[in-house]
Amino acid sequence: MPDNTVPRTGHSAGNGAAPALSRRRFLSVAGQGAVVSAGVAAAATGPLLAAPAAAGPDPNIVPVPNWSKALGAGVNVNPYGKPSKFEKDVVRREVTWLTASSESSVSFTPLYALDGTITPNGLCFVRHHGGEAEIDPDKYRFMVHGLVDRELVFTLEDIKRMPGRVNRAYFLECAANSGMEWRGAQLNGCQFTHGMIHNVYYTGVPLRAFLDVAGVKPKGKWVLAEGADAAVMTRSIPIEKALDDCLVAFAMNGEALRPEQGYPVRLVVPGWEGNMWVKWLRRIKVGDQPWQQREETSKYTDLLADGRSRRFTFIMDAKSVVTSPSPQAPLKQKGPTVLTGIAWSGRGAIRRVDVSLDGGRNWTTARIEGPNTPMSMTRFYLDFDWGGEELMVQSRAMDDTGYVQPTKQELRAIRGTNSIYHNNGIQTWLVRSNGETENVEVG
Amino acid sequence: MPDNTVPRTGHSAGNGAAPALSRRRFLSVAGQGAVVSAGVAAAATGPLLAAPAAAGPDPNIVPVPNWSKALGAGVNVNPYGKPSKFEKDVVRREVTWLTASSESSVSFTPLYALDGTITPNGLCFVRHHGGEAEIDPDKYRFMVHGLVDRELVFTLEDIKRMPGRVNRAYFLECAANSGMEWRGAQLNGCQFTHGMIHNVYYTGVPLRAFLDVAGVKPKGKWVLAEGADAAVMTRSIPIEKALDDCLVAFAMNGEALRPEQGYPVRLVVPGWEGNMWVKWLRRIKVGDQPWQQREETSKYTDLLADGRSRRFTFIMDAKSVVTSPSPQAPLKQKGPTVLTGIAWSGRGAIRRVDVSLDGGRNWTTARIEGPNTPMSMTRFYLDFDWGGEELMVQSRAMDDTGYVQPTKQELRAIRGTNSIYHNNGIQTWLVRSNGETENVEVG
Repeated sequence: MPDNTVPRTGHSAGNGAAPALSRRRFLSVAGQGAVVSAGVAAAATGPLLAAPAAAGPDPNIVPVPNWSKALGAGVNVNPYGKPSKFEKDVVRREVTWLTASSESSVSFTPLYALDGTITPNGLCFVRHHGGEAEIDPDKYRFMVHGLVDRELVFTLEDIKRMPGRVNRAYFLECAANSGMEWRGAQLNGCQFTHGMIHNVYYTGVPLRAFLDVAGVKPKGKWVLAEGADAAVMTRSIPIEKALDDCLVAFAMNGEALRPEQGYPVRLVVPGWEGNMWVKWLRRIKVGDQPWQQREETSKYTDLLADGRSRRFTFIMDAKSVVTSPSPQAPLKQKGPTVLTGIAWSGRGAIRRVDVSLDGGRNWTTARIEGPNTPMSMTRFYLDFDWGGEELMVQSRAMDDTGYVQPTKQELRAIRGTNSIYHNNGIQTWLVRSNGETENVEVG
Repeated sequence: MPDNTVPRTGHSAGNGAAPALSRRRFLSVAGQGAVVSAGVAAAATGPLLAAPAAAGPDPNIVPVPNWSKALGAGVNVNPYGKPSKFEKDVVRREVTWLTASSESSVSFTPLYALDGTITPNGLCFVRHHGGEAEIDPDKYRFMVHGLVDRELVFTLEDIKRMPGRVNRAYFLECAANSGMEWRGAQLNGCQFTHGMIHNVYYTGVPLRAFLDVAGVKPKGKWVLAEGADAAVMTRSIPIEKALDDCLVAFAMNGEALRPEQGYPVRLVVPGWEGNMWVKWLRRIKVGDQPWQQREETSKYTDLLADGRSRRFTFIMDAKSVVTSPSPQAPLKQKGPTVLTGIAWSGRGAIRRVDVSLDGGRNWTTARIEGPNTPMSMTRFYLDFDWGGEELMVQSRAMDDTGYVQPTKQELRAIRGTNSIYHNNGIQTWLVRSNGETENVEVG
């Protein structure tokens, strides 16, 4: 990825670290006469308002800025709002050499620039197999058929009138996320190594409600989910999962599904690989065995070292990545530093995340902050003091089943390097003394 | 509001209700030979795939739609995504006669079209007093001064390097939300009666961390929060609240704050009236008493019946509203119906929400669904069977302090009708037999 696509916002004057230090260290730093920030200058020279000249080192403190002098834009210049122009580089990105056509490609979530646990709808990664279907919600139909007592077709209004509507936050990770890293460090940015994931709140109706009304026959052991896009995406799902926690969803993060996420209706398959979450959901067929569709045979199976393929590896195991620092979010200055990242597991909630700054020799338990629910993205932080030494940053997730995220070496020993799917190995970032960060692997 | 601004999406053919009914009722409805939905037709006439002709009543079931025949748009046509063109009416709206200029006005959240508990960033209501400040994040500075041991100035990077970053979901409600309803039902849509509220996840640093580094002097009992916009919004906040749960926030729902929400930094004052959540936060000054600024004297005080004003009524009491059905979201057909709405309290979490369909004579406890954390928006549902009778819909929230949302009559008996602030009275929607809904008051 060309480095000029990497945002370089943020002021880096002096030791802004000072405010985060103890008062003892704080004052001693100020006393050292090092290049100091306005904050330190203010502390060292007394009240700013009383002595504006003391703000010499920082020209942006005392003068009243233009934005405080003149009326700004009105309240409704954008009836549907947009990000600040200063955030224009925070966008989804393709890796053009990765795929042959943009209709069957992926555009990655800019994880390095995000925080918290929710992915904004406009930045949720996009994976299409036949392009984005543009569906008229009035003409949309959803069919339930196959081994059922009565075959049914629902309009979008019908779905919205079903009892038992729920709201749930779940991560959606493509089975091929980090797939390009199987054979070694390759893509220089967590947007590209781990950006095939997003985490949003879904509003929808449990799939079970539709199957109950249709009446699943005793022989019904699997369901086929089919999309209405040109790729006619189809996947086989065990009836147990279909009757457990799958959702027929029509809203994300409070508003209608986005077109690229399956508007007006998608299937939600919590904790399971992304391409089972069929977008533009057209039908659910009940059968007595899996259908062995293209996307579960020639694709989305794990080719092992001996040439055999592992099929139906539905669950996304525990995984994590440090999003900052990372190649697109280098460290800008020494002193107090907030390291942050995300962790998730398809088997439950994240119980603990450990972080290493020395390539896995020593580990510190990170601070999990914010929502921490099953099969949903968890945010972690490690606040530390960076002295400018070289770092080998890693994170290691543990879920509440006791499963521990493995190293890439451990994964390769078992599964070889033929697969591009289900790579949940530990990621390593090398932070150089100048703060620049790159994708590497440790011995 | 002109009715032509009201979205009329959604298919309303026949009794799509059937799938949500018991099998007994379901089949009897199908048997009545009423105008029936595709679902009913399918059930009444056997498998659709075997007998497509049976789908006669619904032309949209059997033919393969165009969106399944041709490639759609590529994965990155919108590097920052947008809603479907079919959702173009789901936008923030102004009430032009309400304010003199759009730079000092409000644009309301389209609550009637939203679901779940999160408000999408692009639809969060906007209230400006001097227009939207456009702040260069590199030139942004945040000052802490007044009765402190050391006055400090922070860059945006300094703020992001402070330890103790947190992620919290909180509602923000303008003190004037529902203000136009004090003297009686006036605005015909919950977007306008209750749309000065939004609920998002904030990422930021506790204000206490900044005050601790600066060192609050013993005489420091209040803080002044000042915005960098042309209105120089200023509010006085008791030191106890400043040291409790206030946040200096730089992200919302995972991404940078939106410009109209205070980019790059705003103050978060959980549970307290919206205009204390100072946007484009420029400084926090510590003092020994409130400053009696414009926005806490001539404005944002509650004028009582006897002409006296109630000041510093910071906390937003428990409140709720049914968002669907509502004037902008009328009922479209008889049968199974999902009534939904939102509830919130500045004093804690919502413990219970009751719904009445007959103007408050009888109440049913609604189903609270999704996140239910303190000082954050809660979603409730009531699934019921509508026979086409006239309804008088109300909702009544209770928070975990035991406080119960009052009627408008109860509020007026105590506070008169001179105020436009802090109206948390119970809202009534009249649903006519044709489904059209309007804003009314009972007895």
